[in-house]
Amino acid sequence: MTKKIILDLDTGVDDALALAYALGSPELELIGVTGTYGNVLVEQGVANDLALLDLFGHPEVPVYAGLPHAGDRDGFEVLEISSFIHGANGVGDVELPAATRGPEEKSAVDFLVESVREHGDDLVIVPTGPSTNIAAAIEADPEFAEKAHIVLMGGALTVPGNVSAWAEANINQDPAASDLMFRRARDVTMVGLDVTLQTLLTYEDTAKWRELGTEAATKLADITDYYIKAYETTAPYLGGCGLHDPLAVGVAVDESLVDLLPVNMKVDTEGETRGRTIGDEERLSEKEKTARVAVGVDAERFLAELMERIGRVLAD
Amino acid sequence: MTKKIILDLDTGVDDALALAYALGSPELELIGVTGTYGNVLVEQGVANDLALLDLFGHPEVPVYAGLPHAGDRDGFEVLEISSFIHGANGVGDVELPAATRGPEEKSAVDFLVESVREHGDDLVIVPTGPSTNIAAAIEADPEFAEKAHIVLMGGALTVPGNVSAWAEANINQDPAASDLMFRRARDVTMVGLDVTLQTLLTYEDTAKWRELGTEAATKLADITDYYIKAYETTAPYLGGCGLHDPLAVGVAVDESLVDLLPVNMKVDTEGETRGRTIGDEERLSEKEKTARVAVGVDAERFLAELMERIGRVLAD
Repeated sequence: MTKKIILDLDTGVDDALALAYALGSPELELIGVTGTYGNVLVEQGVANDLALLDLFGHPEVPVYAGLPHAGDRDGFEVLEISSFIHGANGVGDVELPAATRGPEEKSAVDFLVESVREHGDDLVIVPTGPSTNIAAAIEADPEFAEKAHIVLMGGALTVPGNVSAWAEANINQDPAASDLMFRRARDVTMVGLDVTLQTLLTYEDTAKWRELGTEAATKLADITDYYIKAYETTAPYLGGCGLHDPLAVGVAVDESLVDLLPVNMKVDTEGETRGRTIGDEERLSEKEKTARVAVGVDAERFLAELMERIGRVLAD
Repeated sequence: MTKKIILDLDTGVDDALALAYALGSPELELIGVTGTYGNVLVEQGVANDLALLDLFGHPEVPVYAGLPHAGDRDGFEVLEISSFIHGANGVGDVELPAATRGPEEKSAVDFLVESVREHGDDLVIVPTGPSTNIAAAIEADPEFAEKAHIVLMGGALTVPGNVSAWAEANINQDPAASDLMFRRARDVTMVGLDVTLQTLLTYEDTAKWRELGTEAATKLADITDYYIKAYETTAPYLGGCGLHDPLAVGVAVDESLVDLLPVNMKVDTEGETRGRTIGDEERLSEKEKTARVAVGVDAERFLAELMERIGRVLAD
């Protein structure tokens, strides 16, 4: 039986890779994409999702627009570093044919809440941006926190952050929402920089996509090459680009790709370390752990899975 | 065969417990105590070590005085919070009969260096204070970094610090020394707040010591009760005092007490998170890991071991 999945994306180059990974995974049925802000504005992200679903041959997957900014902020502006890494349009400044359809009328939050009520344990939600939509779903419906299975890309527990020495970009956008998620949701798997910076893609890999000769392959290679190039500036010691968002999808398919450490997590919502993901010292000795943090990864196997799964989507 | 052990202590209440734990462990031969600063001045710590060794019936164990302050500081003053937790004299303001002997003439650093050269894999070093003596030994002799087996109490990886939101007290005293230790030493096991705050002692436990009726038992119960009382103020949610330093000795005896996560660690030596222990993002993908961090603990088994081992020393 396939597992149903919802991707909550701020698309974004690695969000595009996550989307392709999900579509290329026979174990998964992508029942919808919810849009969030972060790498881009929510409107741009939703437009990218729609365009990419067309490009990848899946115009049937519905896209729902989510909240445009954190609840404790009046608005949202894309950080300069985000534009540098993802391109001003989020997809490496590569032009994609605009989709002929728009997003659904239903809101992302309603879709998340209803989907958890309907599908329960058959559903996994993979947020790859700020936790704003997830927190809103938790506040909208107590059942969501109880029943949702969440595998997020975000945070950094055993390594420094990437927007500051302590904060990872997704969590940093809306620390209060991520904190609420960690405190209220019963099943959260955190796939953060601890592992995603160990899974790297290089120009050699994208060159293999180009050999497929399809439009989708060429476009995704162009998009990804922009991202790899940005990494040459921001993290030259890595030798490639971090596969943040697709690794979260990989873990949603097969959690044996990572080593999971059970920890009751929290997010610092104020003070000097605002945006830091860390174990909650006040729930340290509680037997029940509501979160598991990926602290090790079989990078080689994940990369092989990624090339096979994305290759499957691009070849068609 | 017994394993040789050197304790590098800034004695301190939980250092006293660590000393008793080591003396009560038949698997260990305590070949010396080296003194460092932290909970107290180095002179006070050395005096406490000598007095406690007498109290515990082991006046034959040599004590070596170490460096009085961090290399990048001109001196050292005990923090107010340290006096609050350990008492002004380091041992809960309990009066101990002064030892009739003094420390050895040899320096702590020379003793550490010579011991590693002499005993190699048969020796484990357990620092429970700042890393100043250890860093000096590393700089004094390249063989020390290669061959020393170090199990330290210090740091916090998956939980906040205890002197700031990010820094643990021992590491905070001399971040540069701890950073050098993590970067240069080949075998470091970090027993930090991640696990030590899960191992708690209560008045019920010290009451069992009192029942033994010996002077050593009464004094150690008095010393420890002071510490438990301080914890009621500093961390009331714990419900006891953290068994920081003895847990490091426990792990030196039997590492199966904890779950160890291999990580190449570093310490932030400057900037806003000075004193933080964190994985080194630049060595994240290196296959060889020079440190292992305790991230889980069998608290129940450790507490049973501690009561048995310390009880053995106090009963005699």
